[in-house]
Amino acid sequence: MRKNYLLTPGPTPLPPQISEAMSRPIIHHRTPQFQAILKEATEGLRYVYQTKNDVFILASSGTGAMEAAVVNLLSCGDTALVIQGGKFGERWTEICKAYGINTEVIDVKWGRAVNPLDIQEKVKNNPAIKVVFTTLCETSTGVVNDIAAIGRIVKDTNALLVVDAISGLGAIDLKTDDWFCDIVVSGSQKGLMLPPGLGFISVSPKAFKLIESSKGSRYYLDLKKAKKALDKTDTPFTPAITLIIALNEALKMMKEDGLENIFARHKKMADAVRSAVLALGLKLFAPEAGSDVVTAVCLPEGLDGEKLVKTMRDTYGVTIAGGQDSLKGKVCRIAHMGFIEEFDIITGISCLEKVLTQMGYKFTLGTGIRAAEETFLKK
Amino acid sequence: MRKNYLLTPGPTPLPPQISEAMSRPIIHHRTPQFQAILKEATEGLRYVYQTKNDVFILASSGTGAMEAAVVNLLSCGDTALVIQGGKFGERWTEICKAYGINTEVIDVKWGRAVNPLDIQEKVKNNPAIKVVFTTLCETSTGVVNDIAAIGRIVKDTNALLVVDAISGLGAIDLKTDDWFCDIVVSGSQKGLMLPPGLGFISVSPKAFKLIESSKGSRYYLDLKKAKKALDKTDTPFTPAITLIIALNEALKMMKEDGLENIFARHKKMADAVRSAVLALGLKLFAPEAGSDVVTAVCLPEGLDGEKLVKTMRDTYGVTIAGGQDSLKGKVCRIAHMGFIEEFDIITGISCLEKVLTQMGYKFTLGTGIRAAEETFLKK
Repeated sequence: MRKNYLLTPGPTPLPPQISEAMSRPIIHHRTPQFQAILKEATEGLRYVYQTKNDVFILASSGTGAMEAAVVNLLSCGDTALVIQGGKFGERWTEICKAYGINTEVIDVKWGRAVNPLDIQEKVKNNPAIKVVFTTLCETSTGVVNDIAAIGRIVKDTNALLVVDAISGLGAIDLKTDDWFCDIVVSGSQKGLMLPPGLGFISVSPKAFKLIESSKGSRYYLDLKKAKKALDKTDTPFTPAITLIIALNEALKMMKEDGLENIFARHKKMADAVRSAVLALGLKLFAPEAGSDVVTAVCLPEGLDGEKLVKTMRDTYGVTIAGGQDSLKGKVCRIAHMGFIEEFDIITGISCLEKVLTQMGYKFTLGTGIRAAEETFLKK
Repeated sequence: MRKNYLLTPGPTPLPPQISEAMSRPIIHHRTPQFQAILKEATEGLRYVYQTKNDVFILASSGTGAMEAAVVNLLSCGDTALVIQGGKFGERWTEICKAYGINTEVIDVKWGRAVNPLDIQEKVKNNPAIKVVFTTLCETSTGVVNDIAAIGRIVKDTNALLVVDAISGLGAIDLKTDDWFCDIVVSGSQKGLMLPPGLGFISVSPKAFKLIESSKGSRYYLDLKKAKKALDKTDTPFTPAITLIIALNEALKMMKEDGLENIFARHKKMADAVRSAVLALGLKLFAPEAGSDVVTAVCLPEGLDGEKLVKTMRDTYGVTIAGGQDSLKGKVCRIAHMGFIEEFDIITGISCLEKVLTQMGYKFTLGTGIRAAEETFLKK
């Protein structure tokens, strides 16, 4: 009889249209029927990416798409700069190191955004840097980076800009072309409201030039193969057919809604969560650079954050995320991304109020909800 | 109003239980609820694989799992032997070459199985060979190789045996442990009756020893990461949650049915197809080594095979596969794998009879169906 509510930064809840699409009989992928879907989905991705570049669909998680960026652009002994301010920035470093890339790192304090000028300095001082790896929204901290400013800086250098937009694409603004992003990677289970299992990667003509000359080893993630296939509306290997059919449905929904409305809705959801947790007397982990997709909340000193998240989930069916690595037990992360509406937020905050009270934290019950409601009533 | 019928060697039709599982609301992957499913699915895979080894589930197509075998076992400059008798054997060679592996090849004539003694000779003559890459069922030709005999030979050498069982696992016999298969890779969209998007890979303790010492670059497909995660009933990266939930349902169905019954059903379906096409006066492309999962049929001289397949699909909704590469237009391939029953075969043969007749091929209408029915009536 228990109902479940998902407020996690991936997977995000599935719209009923997506569930329906996932349940359809399978079709073969080398057919005009599937080709039409692949073509439409690729166009839809271009809309969400705000790009004229090719966008490739991989049968992989987002990490597979990140690896595709690294192994196609660089080879052993090349140099890259990684902006690292959380678990997913660190993933760029890990992938680069696994492939023998010399990796310079800008270590940003968790909870802060990178200062774009620091990137400028690093790239100026080391002309060997071929690629700058960044993160749009760092899911582990909720921080959003200023990709527009970073893009303006990197475009005047010899380096390429790669953005991990796994968390954020289709939820907050990312102008791939206007912001000079050479490669943008993403995944299906976040802003795109799908189950996990698809990776996406957009590639600029400038990036393709580097790919052409790069000697890095790759096969399954080879973007030259992907390009050759996509030019014939095909995929190099068996695609994740069902997920691509669902993707196409999600993209149609998003196009109908319009990116501006989607971004405005995410901002409203985020504003409501931020105002609610502040009204409860809690602090935001990233007060200056908090994203509109996930909010990390500092929990009261002494309160067991792991237990809070577990109780909300296992006792009341409301799943939010806990802290990762050094933040374990100290923060909780409430996502407001994808197919999330006003009353999902109300449910999440209400459950948070309930469990905080049960765990002995003192505040006037309903304070968070009132603040959220006030936000929602604003024009 | 048109009904569609799928008789292709991947994807294969989805049972209604699988479609239902695919349409369920998404759950989060770092929860006890998903862990229980992952554990059960992993156990179920061990049953289908007939192994005590670890079996890892990747968010990738089958080719991703093939690449995982190569990049985890070998590094640049190592030597491998590839058995190549069709498009998918060739894929091993392509992957090995992409990673700088010295690749010896046994080129088997398309339509024939490899002679295991040829492998013995090659491995004996070149002790540098670390891995032998083979294919259980070569989808492009319908040939099944004698993995049991190959296993007996390779186990007495220093080389490891890797089997591509993407086509075949869960449809025809493959005793991973008894046949000394160190690594067996597979995919979701064939015998396992699921949409594409999952790769599987089993790893023997002997293979893990080589993986430990191998210096090959890898990250997303790193099996050491996969092992570390699986030991905690987890995955290193976001798994394809929905597909794994559906996998678990499929594996439960298969366990209930029992491998012996499943293999017997596949044999009966294959026998019916073979007898039908012979009764129609057509020839089998692989008369001596035809598999029970897909049958390649030689089409009459002068008959346009591409048009045959296209007409069956686009006019009558019956999708079979055409020939690949050098077989283009010359053969058609009828799959009888996964969730396929007697009357699916009847439908496929009936449509073949219809279009063959329309294209001017002479035979007594109903001859193929009669032969199939006779086969089905046999005990």
